[in-house]
Amino acid sequence: MPKLNVVKIGGAVIEEEDKLLSFLKDFAALKGPKILVHGGGKKASLWAEKMGIPVQMKDGRRITDAPTLELISGIYAGQVNKTIVAHLQAFGCNALGLSGADGNAILAHKRPVKAIDYGFVGDVEYVNASLYQQLLDQAIVPVCCALTHDGKGQLLNTNADTITAEIGKALAKSFETKISYCFELPGVLKDIHQKDSLIEKINEASYTELLLNNTISAGMLPKLHNAFEALHAGVDEVAIGATKMINNPIPYTSITLK
Amino acid sequence: MPKLNVVKIGGAVIEEEDKLLSFLKDFAALKGPKILVHGGGKKASLWAEKMGIPVQMKDGRRITDAPTLELISGIYAGQVNKTIVAHLQAFGCNALGLSGADGNAILAHKRPVKAIDYGFVGDVEYVNASLYQQLLDQAIVPVCCALTHDGKGQLLNTNADTITAEIGKALAKSFETKISYCFELPGVLKDIHQKDSLIEKINEASYTELLLNNTISAGMLPKLHNAFEALHAGVDEVAIGATKMINNPIPYTSITLK
Repeated sequence: MPKLNVVKIGGAVIEEEDKLLSFLKDFAALKGPKILVHGGGKKASLWAEKMGIPVQMKDGRRITDAPTLELISGIYAGQVNKTIVAHLQAFGCNALGLSGADGNAILAHKRPVKAIDYGFVGDVEYVNASLYQQLLDQAIVPVCCALTHDGKGQLLNTNADTITAEIGKALAKSFETKISYCFELPGVLKDIHQKDSLIEKINEASYTELLLNNTISAGMLPKLHNAFEALHAGVDEVAIGATKMINNPIPYTSITLK
Repeated sequence: MPKLNVVKIGGAVIEEEDKLLSFLKDFAALKGPKILVHGGGKKASLWAEKMGIPVQMKDGRRITDAPTLELISGIYAGQVNKTIVAHLQAFGCNALGLSGADGNAILAHKRPVKAIDYGFVGDVEYVNASLYQQLLDQAIVPVCCALTHDGKGQLLNTNADTITAEIGKALAKSFETKISYCFELPGVLKDIHQKDSLIEKINEASYTELLLNNTISAGMLPKLHNAFEALHAGVDEVAIGATKMINNPIPYTSITLK
C-alpha cells in the first residue's frame, strides 16, 4: 500500500509567520501523498474582539454562535487557509484548500444540546474518502480547515484534531497512514516541566501502564484517546511532537498498537 | 464540443440571503458543466469599518493594502465562498470553492505602480485550464472567488468580472462557452432609466453603431469591452442580465461576434 502522511498544525506555528514558513517549507519537501489539516490559531479571538463579537469558551472549546461562525469561516477557510495554500504553491507543493463543504469533503451534524449548547459545532458523520483519493491521484495536496457542513446548507465548526483523525481513518483502507500532530512540545512527556522526559514509544500495553501510574497530563489524554481510536480504525502510526519532526530526524512520541 | 456555463454574480445577490438562495437554487438546476464566479459584495467594507481598517476606493476599485487583503481573503475565500458552497451542496450541486492559489488555479502579477498604487491587486497571467477541466470531468462545480496569487506566496485581489472572462477564455478551447454576467438590471439598456429599453442582441457591427451614437452608459462600457475581448478569444456568447436569466426564459442582452 502507498504511504500517506496526514499532518495537523495549530497554535503558534499558525500565528507566527516565520514559524509557519519554516514548517510549510518542510511540509512541501515531504515526499509522497500528504494532507495538511490546520486550526485557526488565536486570530479568531483577535478578530472577534476587534469586531465586538464576545468570545465564549467552555473547557477550552469555543461556543460558536452565528456571528462567531461567520467570523471563523472567514478566518479558517479564507485568511489562514489561503495564506497556507499560497505559500505551499510558492514552495512547489500543489496545495488546494478544502472546508468540509467543498466537494462534500466532510459531512457532520450539529452537536445536540445537552448540558452545554456549543452552537454551530459539528460532530463528523462521514468523510468523502474518494474526493481526497481523486485529489491525491492528481498529485494535489489537500489543505483542510476546521469547518464541516451538515448537507443542508449549514457550515459547522469542528475540532481540527478530530478532523485529522477522521480523515486518517477514512483513508487507512487505501494507504499505509501516518498521522502527525504537531505542537509546541517535543511529544508526550513523563513530566510536563521537563522537555527531556519525552516518551518516544507508546503502544497499547504501555499506555495502560501510563494511565495506571497517572503519568500523562490531563491535557494530553484526549489526544492519546483519539490516537488509539484512529489506530484501531486502521491508521498505522500516530506521531505527537514538535513541528520540525515531520521532515527532520528529531525524536517524537510514536504511538502504535503493538 | 460540450457546452460550458461560466456565471458571475455580485452585489445585492450576495448580500441578501433570500436573493442568494433563490439564485443558487437556479444555478444548481442548470444542466451540464458550469463554473460560478462571485464578488464579495459590501461585506468587505462592512467588516473593514468594524475592524477600523480604512476603506479606500479609487474609481470604484478598492485600494488593497496588507490589512485589507487579509480581510478580503477572509471574506471572499472564506465567509462568502463557503456559504455559497454549503448552500449549493444542499441543492444537490457538488460545488468546490477555489481561490486562484488553490491548485494554482489563477496566476497573476501585482499591478505595477503608475499614477495610482492599487496595492495587492493582481493582473491575470495564466489560468490553469487543466485543473478546471479535471474538476468538471469529475462533475465537480468550481466556485471561484476574486483572489489570485503570484506563485511566490502572495495573494492578490483581482476583479471578479476579469476572472470570469479569463476563465471563459481559457476553457473556450475545450467547450462551447457562454459567460453570463448577472446583475441588478435586465441587461444593457438604451436608456438607463427605462428598464423596458433592453437591447436584446449586440454584435460587433451594432456595437460600433451604439458607440457612435453614445447609447451605452459609461458604467457598461468596460463590461462590453471585456465581452468582445472574450468573444475574440473564442467564447461563444456573453450574456448580461438579471440573475434570473441563467435558468429562466426571460430577456437579456446576448452579445456575440456576428
